[in-house]
Amino acid sequence: MIRAGIVGGTGYTGVELLRILALHPDVEVTVVTSRADAGISVDALYPSLRGYIDLKFSLPDVAGLSECDVVFFATPNGTAMLMAEQLLARGIKVIDLSADFRIKDPQEWSHWYGMEHASPDLIAEAFYGLPEVNRDAIKKAQLIACPGCYPTAVQLGFLPLIENNLVDVKQLIADVKSGVSGAGRKAEIPTLMSEAGESFKAYAVNGHRHLPEIRQGLASAAGQSVGLTFVPHLTPMIRGIHATLYGQLTTTELTPKISIEDIQALYEQRYHAESFVDVLPQGSHPDTRNVRGSNNCQISIFQPQGQQTIVVLSVIDNLVKGAAGQAIQNMNLMFGLKEDLGLKIIGLYP
Amino acid sequence: MIRAGIVGGTGYTGVELLRILALHPDVEVTVVTSRADAGISVDALYPSLRGYIDLKFSLPDVAGLSECDVVFFATPNGTAMLMAEQLLARGIKVIDLSADFRIKDPQEWSHWYGMEHASPDLIAEAFYGLPEVNRDAIKKAQLIACPGCYPTAVQLGFLPLIENNLVDVKQLIADVKSGVSGAGRKAEIPTLMSEAGESFKAYAVNGHRHLPEIRQGLASAAGQSVGLTFVPHLTPMIRGIHATLYGQLTTTELTPKISIEDIQALYEQRYHAESFVDVLPQGSHPDTRNVRGSNNCQISIFQPQGQQTIVVLSVIDNLVKGAAGQAIQNMNLMFGLKEDLGLKIIGLYP
Amino acid sequence: MIRAGIVGGTGYTGVELLRILALHPDVEVTVVTSRADAGISVDALYPSLRGYIDLKFSLPDVAGLSECDVVFFATPNGTAMLMAEQLLARGIKVIDLSADFRIKDPQEWSHWYGMEHASPDLIAEAFYGLPEVNRDAIKKAQLIACPGCYPTAVQLGFLPLIENNLVDVKQLIADVKSGVSGAGRKAEIPTLMSEAGESFKAYAVNGHRHLPEIRQGLASAAGQSVGLTFVPHLTPMIRGIHATLYGQLTTTELTPKISIEDIQALYEQRYHAESFVDVLPQGSHPDTRNVRGSNNCQISIFQPQGQQTIVVLSVIDNLVKGAAGQAIQNMNLMFGLKEDLGLKIIGLYP
Amino acid sequence: MIRAGIVGGTGYTGVELLRILALHPDVEVTVVTSRADAGISVDALYPSLRGYIDLKFSLPDVAGLSECDVVFFATPNGTAMLMAEQLLARGIKVIDLSADFRIKDPQEWSHWYGMEHASPDLIAEAFYGLPEVNRDAIKKAQLIACPGCYPTAVQLGFLPLIENNLVDVKQLIADVKSGVSGAGRKAEIPTLMSEAGESFKAYAVNGHRHLPEIRQGLASAAGQSVGLTFVPHLTPMIRGIHATLYGQLTTTELTPKISIEDIQALYEQRYHAESFVDVLPQGSHPDTRNVRGSNNCQISIFQPQGQQTIVVLSVIDNLVKGAAGQAIQNMNLMFGLKEDLGLKIIGLYP
Repeated sequence: MIRAGIVGGTGYTGVELLRILALHPDVEVTVVTSRADAGISVDALYPSLRGYIDLKFSLPDVAGLSECDVVFFATPNGTAMLMAEQLLARGIKVIDLSADFRIKDPQEWSHWYGMEHASPDLIAEAFYGLPEVNRDAIKKAQLIACPGCYPTAVQLGFLPLIENNLVDVKQLIADVKSGVSGAGRKAEIPTLMSEAGESFKAYAVNGHRHLPEIRQGLASAAGQSVGLTFVPHLTPMIRGIHATLYGQLTTTELTPKISIEDIQALYEQRYHAESFVDVLPQGSHPDTRNVRGSNNCQISIFQPQGQQTIVVLSVIDNLVKGAAGQAIQNMNLMFGLKEDLGLKIIGLYP
Repeated sequence: MIRAGIVGGTGYTGVELLRILALHPDVEVTVVTSRADAGISVDALYPSLRGYIDLKFSLPDVAGLSECDVVFFATPNGTAMLMAEQLLARGIKVIDLSADFRIKDPQEWSHWYGMEHASPDLIAEAFYGLPEVNRDAIKKAQLIACPGCYPTAVQLGFLPLIENNLVDVKQLIADVKSGVSGAGRKAEIPTLMSEAGESFKAYAVNGHRHLPEIRQGLASAAGQSVGLTFVPHLTPMIRGIHATLYGQLTTTELTPKISIEDIQALYEQRYHAESFVDVLPQGSHPDTRNVRGSNNCQISIFQPQGQQTIVVLSVIDNLVKGAAGQAIQNMNLMFGLKEDLGLKIIGLYP
Repeated sequence: MIRAGIVGGTGYTGVELLRILALHPDVEVTVVTSRADAGISVDALYPSLRGYIDLKFSLPDVAGLSECDVVFFATPNGTAMLMAEQLLARGIKVIDLSADFRIKDPQEWSHWYGMEHASPDLIAEAFYGLPEVNRDAIKKAQLIACPGCYPTAVQLGFLPLIENNLVDVKQLIADVKSGVSGAGRKAEIPTLMSEAGESFKAYAVNGHRHLPEIRQGLASAAGQSVGLTFVPHLTPMIRGIHATLYGQLTTTELTPKISIEDIQALYEQRYHAESFVDVLPQGSHPDTRNVRGSNNCQISIFQPQGQQTIVVLSVIDNLVKGAAGQAIQNMNLMFGLKEDLGLKIIGLYP
Repeated sequence: MIRAGIVGGTGYTGVELLRILALHPDVEVTVVTSRADAGISVDALYPSLRGYIDLKFSLPDVAGLSECDVVFFATPNGTAMLMAEQLLARGIKVIDLSADFRIKDPQEWSHWYGMEHASPDLIAEAFYGLPEVNRDAIKKAQLIACPGCYPTAVQLGFLPLIENNLVDVKQLIADVKSGVSGAGRKAEIPTLMSEAGESFKAYAVNGHRHLPEIRQGLASAAGQSVGLTFVPHLTPMIRGIHATLYGQLTTTELTPKISIEDIQALYEQRYHAESFVDVLPQGSHPDTRNVRGSNNCQISIFQPQGQQTIVVLSVIDNLVKGAAGQAIQNMNLMFGLKEDLGLKIIGLYP
């Protein structure tokens, strides 16, 4: 049994890790930390876990985590970078669900996250935990930077187009809609039900922290820098991300025009062997409810009116494939387990 | 492997049976019928099942079901009573999620369901599938009448009070709130999101079909007829039932007053061995989200201001413990399996 | 024009006062205070008011309010009692939407609100602002204690039964459901959309602050103390209260049995002249959406199965008839205006 | 008093017309038709209107409407084109909220609406009822084709960019999100709360009926045909449309680069005199809740990272500025009334 610790167990990604790991056949959760709730039973705070998790929250310190084989950080940004080195030094694998190790350039990280990076040297050792791109590296990794929720949906949606040089990478648009759980379990007015319910809005249009992460991932696939307009929106539901992606076909008069059927085939081929990325049949529109609670990404591709613009729709559950589920998928790879172990969860519909 | 058939696979209880059975280690779903959608892939209608269920809907006929070991009816009322006899004659176990076999008195059934009962003789052979009351009978049953969603929540909440003669059974009140999925997957105006969203109402206050079923169950526990006021409400959420139950303590000046601590202890003792009924600590309020997608019932008991009125709060997911999950719990019992096999599902929070 | 000031303009009752007063033909809002947001434009915080309110939030002090004819307190409990006396001394009418002057007994107030009352002498001068009970007193009042949202829905529902001695006042039950805006515009985890959305729960079953207020009002109507079980619930919608009320008919073998038609007639007669209380036809179920944004209370009465238990359904918008609208209805009465001036607002359906 | 008739009074645009007209100082609603509900009181179907509308639904025929000064069609597509001519012949003004007269080319109309146009000659006489573009024509019109909800939000958002030749009109993208009331009050499975609640999806990506209408309007502003990708989405809320619009600045090395401040100024200037279009300060994000129930459109403009892509956010209430409110705004213009008469409604927040 893999002994797993969770640092920051009282946020939504923390409780989601617990939901999945509690039923994972090869994992035992041995430590769950929370500075604020230390001493309280986990299931007193989360009655959904009654009968499944019999632990108390403990204080987050390296000693308490030293018997773990793997430690997940489900903490606000800026915590994992303070503790990861000591854990790694003890041979403990670290899977960080926060943003601390996602951006390769520490200067850029500081710019977007508003603090100095505490372990810039570790960044290079961290692998970006998007298995559909980085599987082999992840298998050997000790430190994983789990992708953000928006970056997961956007990258999985855009990758086949970019990897095949089908669209102008200088002119990508990602119009993405997220449920409110993406904002976390924090006492803040904008995500009160009276504020976020029955309403829809864009936010951070001038620049969201996930922008550099998406750009970095897409640039890596493109082999060049990309031009991306990323507009995140808050949608009145709890779980789910829906990315609507726009790319301009690069085919010109000189190159033969690629058909939407060809693009569909490329997508299906790209993700054929993937357990968690599912290309829907032509004409289908993915619905976030169909991946609710599951680790799946469902994707559709359109070419409206046969024009130059390709529209890709990509949906995930932000807390699963966009966070806890993907983290566990990474863990499975790191420990040589079957990639979908403990992750065969069917979306909760209705 | 148990070969399971589902008649009426296109309603919410049908797709919920599929969600759970697809991952049940001892079951293979071999037939899913739908008159309207025969010939269509199940996962085309329900993309959440892609990769898990590889079947087409077939027409509902006895021949097509004859290789099954068990057949679940997730049909509107009035269908199971037409087909059950033939299936039972072939040695196939039948688990009916509709109301056809719930009411022992066919006259009363006709009164509430507005049709003649087609198999009145079978009613006596059917066992009421509330394992917390009827476990031994269920183990030997060939035909199970699964309880309705409201009756499950109300009976589990009231039983310890009634079995212990603690409250006046002539004066019970059940104020119950249901999510809209309880109305089923039917094209009807009142459950449109524009109608049912952001609004709350009672309905059928003068008499709901679940009233005779609840009265029958409570009367059986009481050993006498009961007086019950049952007010169902529609609440703007998809899944979940919350029963708020009121009983008047029968303790008088002559009998020593029972304390809320004693009542709490009685509840804990009554459900101690139950996998799916969970009595929360004194002072907790159950929340429907904590049982969302799970087969659990969570219960709290209060005696506000130490007065005569006992308040019991009982929550379930109407589609799981109130329908598909309970049906599978019955199936496990009927086939001698571990009662919670395939049903260890943690509530989806948030 | 009546010059109105609003103290505490940044909560939901504050902004609702602004929504209604901005269009009131005889009122000009001249001051809106907010300690936290002083200096900010009101419409910067509330863009729905752009073009209607051209004011900045100011600091709450008596001097700044001294030019007002009336001051509304839309503050947390404990503020109005500190400022009301000085305003009254200047001849300014005070309408308090908080709980400071609702409970006649300062000891009981302290017990439930957890603080010493700062102006116990003023309590006697305050009139309880339920116009359907207290109209004549309100017309002459200088200080109004506006009823709470739950108390408004419950009292309007129960009054005709109690005033006519039809039910046992020792055994009343009020099972009441509220939208989340009732919890106010406060950064707190339990009312986050991820927590309160798609879920239903009871809270404060052992005792809610509105219990003594409801008891006081019902006792006044009954001419004796009452026994009330009050269970509030949080329902996943923003606006609306639905009270489901249960009373036991007192008719005995010796007294002729009253029919539900008679009770219906009593309700219609009781509220016939009321602009804002509307008794629906027998058999209708009120829906909170039909009073959304309006100052109406809609009521239905049932006698399920002709038994002893009378069920009353009473719905209001908690922010209008349960707060701001009722406050303005009081203001109209105090200033000798038509009672419904500025309050002819039709519920926003769908 | 203007005598107004409403044909098709049982849909959401019909009841919304009633909500607004019932309080309009210069209008009396004299006829409301409904084939299905003829003979029923309007307020029996819509209890929110109790006390405001005292009419029964009547059958839709020209005779019954002949005393009206204006008739609104809130009918499914294909009805107004059958009756408009006869009404116009009687000197009755006609305001059609359906799509019958929106598209100038009857062939294109037939292509998208799947039926022959019954009054192609009338199309030329109809004026497109977007006052911000067509005010003078509307004032003299007898027949108005009210814009669709999506077209209203998209055109008001794009117009200043296009009228000033700031963006490449061959490459416009409109990613638009609608609440479910846009689908109307029809018994259909996809808009059940269990289906549309807590989920988000795109639909009709390959071609939505509002596409030709938007293209026609934008082409008229551009003086040339436009290339538009229009992706509509269903968002889990009842009211509201949020358009996120993308345009590519046409400024090149040869032309001086226009700043976002300049664009902001152009927008403010374009809509300065408009009662119902409100350009928010730089950096604000409009929220659909702030226009809920009101006739306002709120707009923000962004130039993320100072790049070539301009992002415009435009929100309306689909049932008000996107339907009934705009229809009444047209009526005011046609009858020489103040344009905002009866339309000073503040958004219902929260």
